[in-house]
Amino acid sequence: MNDIKRPFDLLNRAVGKRVVVGVKGGTSFEGKMMAFDVHMNIALAEAKEKGSEEVFNHLFIRGDSVVYVKPLE
Amino acid sequence: MNDIKRPFDLLNRAVGKRVVVGVKGGTSFEGKMMAFDVHMNIALAEAKEKGSEEVFNHLFIRGDSVVYVKPLE
Amino acid sequence: MNDIKRPFDLLNRAVGKRVVVGVKGGTSFEGKMMAFDVHMNIALAEAKEKGSEEVFNHLFIRGDSVVYVKPLE
Amino acid sequence: MNDIKRPFDLLNRAVGKRVVVGVKGGTSFEGKMMAFDVHMNIALAEAKEKGSEEVFNHLFIRGDSVVYVKPLE
Amino acid sequence: MNDIKRPFDLLNRAVGKRVVVGVKGGTSFEGKMMAFDVHMNIALAEAKEKGSEEVFNHLFIRGDSVVYVKPLE
Amino acid sequence: MNDIKRPFDLLNRAVGKRVVVGVKGGTSFEGKMMAFDVHMNIALAEAKEKGSEEVFNHLFIRGDSVVYVKPLE
Amino acid sequence: MNDIKRPFDLLNRAVGKRVVVGVKGGTSFEGKMMAFDVHMNIALAEAKEKGSEEVFNHLFIRGDSVVYVKPLE
Repeated sequence: MNDIKRPFDLLNRAVGKRVVVGVKGGTSFEGKMMAFDVHMNIALAEAKEKGSEEVFNHLFIRGDSVVYVKPLE
Repeated sequence: MNDIKRPFDLLNRAVGKRVVVGVKGGTSFEGKMMAFDVHMNIALAEAKEKGSEEVFNHLFIRGDSVVYVKPLE
Repeated sequence: MNDIKRPFDLLNRAVGKRVVVGVKGGTSFEGKMMAFDVHMNIALAEAKEKGSEEVFNHLFIRGDSVVYVKPLE
Repeated sequence: MNDIKRPFDLLNRAVGKRVVVGVKGGTSFEGKMMAFDVHMNIALAEAKEKGSEEVFNHLFIRGDSVVYVKPLE
Repeated sequence: MNDIKRPFDLLNRAVGKRVVVGVKGGTSFEGKMMAFDVHMNIALAEAKEKGSEEVFNHLFIRGDSVVYVKPLE
Repeated sequence: MNDIKRPFDLLNRAVGKRVVVGVKGGTSFEGKMMAFDVHMNIALAEAKEKGSEEVFNHLFIRGDSVVYVKPLE
Repeated sequence: MNDIKRPFDLLNRAVGKRVVVGVKGGTSFEGKMMAFDVHMNIALAEAKEKGSEEVFNHLFIRGDSVVYVKPLE
């Protein structure tokens, strides 16, 4: 990954992989990143919220709420 | 759903289905998503707030308040 | 209401009816919706704040503060 | 007031009258509304903050902070 | 001051006089208003923060943080 | 400093001098102001956070976070 | 570093070095800054959150969340 030139390169490579998305207010969601757009809206699959074991097929996170994205793989 | 290319695809498919909409401040609303627009304004039917059993025919959620949308089906 | 195509359709139909408007910070106001504009500024009549019985003839709510609008009829 | 067509009509009629202006963070100010502009900046006269009896000749409230305006007359 | 037509008139007249500037988060600063601009950035002289007696020669307050301006004279 | 005509004049004169920069959330940083830009991004040298004695060679503060700038000299 | 003319110069020089990035809400992340963009989005490598020893290969931080960037070298 020494060839990361722009922060969005990191997001592009995370598509299809599991990530943790931290959002405003302190909570976070873990899931497989299916897609994101220029507004940082993110679609996750097989997602769960921090502290919960309940798994949801899909989750849409609004870009304006995103604090960080942490690829797990 | 392997063909989700953009996050909004996920919202488009959720129209007519039950979703949970998390908003700023920590609360959330569950209901049937009737419509949404590019500002992420959302209209729900048969909606209730987290922790309440009171059901409302309709609910308008302002896009700027939305943190996440979780399709339940 | 199966013909709601856009979230603002829901607001248009709520004019003249009683609504609850939730605002940032956790409080909400109930009143008759007299008018709203594209910024989501809202004018209520016969309005009271959650937890209070004091009724005010009119109330202006700034759009940027609005979290949700819940029609009661 | 059945002829309120736009929310700003309500503010226009409140000029020269006493209002309560609620601001972000939970406090509010009561005073006579001298003027407002399209950004919702508001100038009050004979104003006091909620919970205080100290009266100030004038007060400028920045529009971005305004949550609601409640005409008292 | 019956001739205040726009809220900014109130600020224009406060230049050179002592004011209290309330900012987001609940604190406020008192000082002599030296200048302000259209973004509501404010320069104070001989300023102190609420609850402190320490006086600073000058203070710059970013407009986006301003909640209110209260002229003291 | 009676010739301060615009708030930014105050910042221009603070370059090269020690300042305290208050940021959203309640903390502040003290250091020598090396540079700032129109977005109010600020570069400090020999900086430390309020309540800490640890000194950092440099610190970048994002303009959107700035509440106030207090020149110490 | 006496030749810092603009705050972004400080960020440009921090690429490839370890930094602490403070974000809204009070937490911070330490890691090697791989890249940043004009929106202040930041890509870190070998990153960990304050108070945790868990190291992540990569971390994307959204610019809108950034409060400060502190180069450690």
